[in-house]
Parts: sequence; C-alpha cells; structure tokens
Amino acid sequence: MNCQQVTAYQNQALNYLKKAHIVLTPLEIHNIEIVDFGLGNFEEVGLAIVTYVNTSRVCAKELVLLPHQICPEHIHPPYEHEDGHLEPGKEETFRCRYGQVNLYVKSEKEAYGERLHPEGHNHCAHESHEIRLKEGEQYTLLPHTKHWFQAGEKGAVISEFSTQSRDALDIFTDPRI
Amino acid sequence: MNCQQVTAYQNQALNYLKKAHIVLTPLEIHNIEIVDFGLGNFEEVGLAIVTYVNTSRVCAKELVLLPHQICPEHIHPPYEHEDGHLEPGKEETFRCRYGQVNLYVKSEKEAYGERLHPEGHNHCAHESHEIRLKEGEQYTLLPHTKHWFQAGEKGAVISEFSTQSRDALDIFTDPRI
Ligand SMILES: [Zn+2]
Ligand SMILES: [Zn+2]
Repeated sequence: MNCQQVTAYQNQALNYLKKAHIVLTPLEIHNIEIVDFGLGNFEEVGLAIVTYVNTSRVCAKELVLLPHQICPEHIHPPYEHEDGHLEPGKEETFRCRYGQVNLYVKSEKEAYGERLHPEGHNHCAHESHEIRLKEGEQYTLLPHTKHWFQAGEKGAVISEFSTQSRDALDIFTDPRI
Repeated sequence: MNCQQVTAYQNQALNYLKKAHIVLTPLEIHNIEIVDFGLGNFEEVGLAIVTYVNTSRVCAKELVLLPHQICPEHIHPPYEHEDGHLEPGKEETFRCRYGQVNLYVKSEKEAYGERLHPEGHNHCAHESHEIRLKEGEQYTLLPHTKHWFQAGEKGAVISEFSTQSRDALDIFTDPRI
C-alpha cells in the first residue's frame, strides 16, 4: 500500500469514528493504523486501529471496519509475562459503538481440539458460533478461542478492551498471514 | 440514599452519557451505579459508574461526574492474583469523553514516602501534580500512585481502561471512607 492509499483509508476510518462520535487528538488521527495483514486486499480483509493504551497489562483500542470488511480468524496463545509468570492468551472484550459486527467464535473445546489435530478440523469454520453485536452490545472472548469478525453493511466501530496486545504472537488460520 | 434519589441521580448520569453519545443497553442503564463513598454527600463527593467488563484481568467502565463533583483520593495496593502470582496494584487509564476532568496524582516516590510515614505527609495534598483532561485526552496512572479527580463546570464522562477492579482493596486517604 502506498502512502496516498494509507492516507485515503485513514480518512475513511476517521469518518466512521466521527459517526461513532469518538473524539481523537490530532496525533491519534495522524497515527490511525491501516492493517491489511499482508494480503494486499484491504477493503475486503483488513481494519483500521486507534490504540489508546497498550501496557504490559492493559490494552484499549478502537477498531474500524468498512462495510463487510473482515478481520481474519486468529487465536491468541499464552506467553511469559515480563515478571516471569505464565500469562494466559489475550482476553478481549468487543463493544460495538457504531454499525454492526458479526463475530464468529469457536468454543474452547473446539479450539483445543483443533490445536491437537490441526489438519483434521481446519475445514470446520462453519461450526463457529455467530454473535451479532449492534450499537451498545458487547461480547467477552476468553483465551483459547479462535475468532474472526466482519462488519455489517454500514461498517462498524468497535471498542476493544483487553490484556496486552502482542500482535506478533497471534496465530492466524490463513497460512498466508 | 433512598431509591428515589438513586433513580434521580441515575437519570442525571444518563443525560451526561447521552451528551458523550455513549450507547447503552436497557440493562446497563438500569444498573448505573451511584457511589457516594458512604459520605452521604453525593453531589459533591461521588460518581456514577457503568461497568462494561470486570474479569480477573481486565476492567472497562464509564465514569460520570456532575459539575465539580469529586472522586476522593485513593491508592490501589498490590494483591495476590487468583493463579498465585503477586499482581501490582490496579493500573488505570482515564480518557475524557465529555467535559473536563482535573486529575491530581502523586508520584510513585511521594506515594511510597507517604506509605512509610503516613502521618507526616497526609497534609501535603497540595504537592499533587495536576493533569487537565479535555475531550479526547487521556492519562495512564501506574500503580503506587495516589490520585483523586474532579469534574469541570460542565461535568465529565470518562472512560476507564484498567486491570481488575477490586474496590474493597482500595485505600482512601479520608479515614471516613
Ligand atoms: Zn483477537
Ligand atoms: Zn483509582
């Protein structure tokens, strides 16, 4: 993606954030992150992110999706915390602020099963449980839950409240990511 | 506070949340928490709280303050996490969504000093560092920081992103709380 494209997508994201009445500083606007997961197909698979805070303990963001845009399936594995204790995978709460988001999750048991037998179950994405979040609705994802989400026809602005984001640890189902 | 007073303050809080364009479910509106810290003087010392999520790891809330209303000085002590490791005190990020909030914090060094010599320093509240947060501005408080805050003349709506809230552990400077 070239600089002009990033700027254009940042401006689009800002329009959705304005529809959600989210007030940002000029620096936050300048730093809106445009993520295409390396697939080069942002308008279908991607999202824009405003990160408010991301310490070793707490992370809060706004996520912006264009109409029908997808954040692809992934899982957050456990890791060693900087103080040495084992931290379970990232815990995420998604709260819809504008539009609608459809969240697809696989239960802990299924996710565990898939990790034990990855080949045998990878085609079972249709077994996911669907959760539709409209404005003011939210859902908390515990660790060990595979998940992906897609905005509805108006796009979506979603607040994410979570433990630390360590994006490099995330495991995506799509081997190209 | 009687039931009628609580309902009246809940309705006031809801008005401020509407000014901040925060969309809530009917259940969240019904559960708006009215806190007077047992001082019986809500309009001067108190706040209204909407808790979105509070797990053992992550907490997110909206805080509503009436014009000039105060959340009194307190500190969040370390505690043992349910998995056995020692968790530092609660870490809080305050993000102003509507109005203005003036946040008064004492640096780690001063806060530590006070815990070692509580009598000698309790009068030094004027040594606090003041942070003024307007709409879209935020501040992250690390553990071991004493803090209190007061809304400006328009009141305030503040998002709080934090580790787990364990209110019973909080230590307030005012011995009546
Ligand atoms: Zn995730
Ligand atoms: Zn606090």
